[in-house]
Amino acid sequence: MQAYAEVSTEELQTLRKKLSAQYKEYQSRDLRLDMSRGKPSIEQLDLSMGMMDVLSSEDDLTCEDGTDCRNYGGLTGIREAKELIGDMMEVAPENIIIYGNSSLNVMYDTVSRSMTHGVMGSTPWCKLDKVKFLCPVPGYDRHFAITEYFGIEMINVPMLPTGPDMDLVEKLVASDDSIKGIWCVPKYSNPTGNSYSDETVRRMARLKPAASDFRIYWDNAYGIHHLYDHDQDHLIEILAECKRAGNPDLVYKFSSTSKISFPGSGIAAIATSKNNLEDIEKQLKIQTIGHDKVNQLRHVRFFGDIHGMVEHMRRHADSMRPKFEAVIRILAQELDGLGIGTWTEPKGGYFISFDSMEGCAKDIVARCKKAGLVMTGAGATYPYGKDPYDSNIRIAPSYPPLKDLELAMELFALCVKIVSIDKILADRKSAEAQA
Amino acid sequence: MQAYAEVSTEELQTLRKKLSAQYKEYQSRDLRLDMSRGKPSIEQLDLSMGMMDVLSSEDDLTCEDGTDCRNYGGLTGIREAKELIGDMMEVAPENIIIYGNSSLNVMYDTVSRSMTHGVMGSTPWCKLDKVKFLCPVPGYDRHFAITEYFGIEMINVPMLPTGPDMDLVEKLVASDDSIKGIWCVPKYSNPTGNSYSDETVRRMARLKPAASDFRIYWDNAYGIHHLYDHDQDHLIEILAECKRAGNPDLVYKFSSTSKISFPGSGIAAIATSKNNLEDIEKQLKIQTIGHDKVNQLRHVRFFGDIHGMVEHMRRHADSMRPKFEAVIRILAQELDGLGIGTWTEPKGGYFISFDSMEGCAKDIVARCKKAGLVMTGAGATYPYGKDPYDSNIRIAPSYPPLKDLELAMELFALCVKIVSIDKILADRKSAEAQA
Repeated sequence: MQAYAEVSTEELQTLRKKLSAQYKEYQSRDLRLDMSRGKPSIEQLDLSMGMMDVLSSEDDLTCEDGTDCRNYGGLTGIREAKELIGDMMEVAPENIIIYGNSSLNVMYDTVSRSMTHGVMGSTPWCKLDKVKFLCPVPGYDRHFAITEYFGIEMINVPMLPTGPDMDLVEKLVASDDSIKGIWCVPKYSNPTGNSYSDETVRRMARLKPAASDFRIYWDNAYGIHHLYDHDQDHLIEILAECKRAGNPDLVYKFSSTSKISFPGSGIAAIATSKNNLEDIEKQLKIQTIGHDKVNQLRHVRFFGDIHGMVEHMRRHADSMRPKFEAVIRILAQELDGLGIGTWTEPKGGYFISFDSMEGCAKDIVARCKKAGLVMTGAGATYPYGKDPYDSNIRIAPSYPPLKDLELAMELFALCVKIVSIDKILADRKSAEAQA
Repeated sequence: MQAYAEVSTEELQTLRKKLSAQYKEYQSRDLRLDMSRGKPSIEQLDLSMGMMDVLSSEDDLTCEDGTDCRNYGGLTGIREAKELIGDMMEVAPENIIIYGNSSLNVMYDTVSRSMTHGVMGSTPWCKLDKVKFLCPVPGYDRHFAITEYFGIEMINVPMLPTGPDMDLVEKLVASDDSIKGIWCVPKYSNPTGNSYSDETVRRMARLKPAASDFRIYWDNAYGIHHLYDHDQDHLIEILAECKRAGNPDLVYKFSSTSKISFPGSGIAAIATSKNNLEDIEKQLKIQTIGHDKVNQLRHVRFFGDIHGMVEHMRRHADSMRPKFEAVIRILAQELDGLGIGTWTEPKGGYFISFDSMEGCAKDIVARCKKAGLVMTGAGATYPYGKDPYDSNIRIAPSYPPLKDLELAMELFALCVKIVSIDKILADRKSAEAQA
């Protein structure tokens, strides 16, 4: 195919009319398609229905150490759950605190505690004039929402195919002690789907931050969310790497079973060093008597061990793989060679990242919406919702059934084409006017 | 019986020896009795085992409005749960947010949010030089722990049989705008077991605080935790009373099913005005995508409605009533007329409050411990763990089986006698020395 930029204005105008007719045809179908969030599909949820059967009134809800899961207590979680989640997070059970149902909530609480009480004895951030976070972009909107809520200034750092631009990260954290953290989704990143390279992880672990209370917020949300059995990304385990680098307290690692068992009814956890754990527990024991141990036990009984969990994730992959492949196939089919968009081809996670021509993303998303397809808002992948290029769009293939997804992606590609032609034609017009 | 104060020194010394022998006999039995916390007994936990059967893989986990409880979403809780908990809390479903498993956590988050973001637009408390809370005493140690953790100054207010000393409360909140809250357990209070009188509730609702961001922290933890079918305390509903008084935003009401279904695996809630809810939701949507809806649905399916919950609480009462009655019977039997202690006789809740002679509580608790009986630490019922009279001891009858409880209370009464005699004899000695 010929790149649109090289097509004559007349030909583009003709094409535009043809595409308009197609678009109108979509509009007449009263579609209601939602690809806005990384929600598991009903098919995926059904995979975990066995969770509802593993504990019955005939079962003993007692842990191996005698803890009655039904009663109060167990501030940091039951041993069995720490072992399972430890294997999932690739850390020792001793380095884990099990929380409630949401790792987002754990991250929020971690920032909130740092605001009111600092980090391991540092000045509470609310007492400082300025607190900043580094935000690899494009990134996860709910991370940015937390830091924005607390008035923390967010600094964009470009995401490269290998992870955040480490030259920039190293320079910034070493020179500015108001920088207290960096948001990371290191594996099958949200939204690019890329994983950090070995070098990136090693450089992360070797950061020399000016602020002693700087921490890496390592949101390993998609650690075992592969699409393929063998063709998988591998990430160096960050806690161990930080320890080897002589920086044991540098990182908070977050994870949950939200996209493994049930979103909203899973279990979340933090993994970090002994020093950080002690610091956190001082607060945790004031905040709660303990999280839901029955649900922890339910997860342990359902998955058995990490092998059971990995097998379970293969069934998720069977549902997700055709969807990712369909998105990539349709994008390639419709847009390859046109020079109006690029996209990632992840091997896992929940997202594909699409970059349109500059200045087109908002219009594409708006045009999709007018035909009944809801995408993640353009700009959402940037702090303050401001994509300086207005080009990034997050594609979330998980929720719709495959047939709907294919329809949605065809509509999406159509909208990309229409908006891109309009942009090219408008640019030519204003160039002519200026000449 | 004769009051110890009127018994001769010689007789007291003889009695002391006899009691010492009894105490040694207890010590030789290697007892391990725990009455330190308000934990439901195993018998009570067994009452809720049906919870494990109401949802199976054959069941539809969908709400009446079509919400799939297994997936993300539902920030403020499912409608069915709001209706059930609304009936439990005596407020409309519209005034409720359902949280995770712990009302303590909700209270912590409420104070934490006020620290970082203020209340309905007020200055964040962390930006103020001084923040104070009123603490009716004796009270609940975990309330005091939250305010202490955030550096909030706590001011003791005496608990009368009718509730907090309202003359003092009214005077303080009207005159000092650094006073931002008051901790209340209004029904079957922790630890006295007393409930606020109608006049107290009415005066609470009519408070004229100097601080616009002052709120009543109304922890109605024992709202339906009666011991008797008819002889029950009744509390005026505070949200409605505040509305009638023209103070609709004055109160946050907290509750949970922790001592109804399973502690640690229940559901917690806040009930408050529309304005307060809006303020809270601004934060909540940053903190989480939603709490555990499957567990909310589990509670709804298990209890059915408020009548089912009330019937369930009658079964709890059948377990608790004999324990409360045993404590009161043994205290009366052993201590009536001796002038060395007073205690409350609640009609519900989880605690009985005991007041020893001044300066004896720590010694009594220590002496119990040396014979294998763990009581709540003396002083725990006061802010900063400091009981100015060293006299209050919280008795938690729920957890031990009845036989153990009876043994524990006999031992407790014995320790009260020994410590009281020692105190009287020491006082007499120092009076003689001074003379």
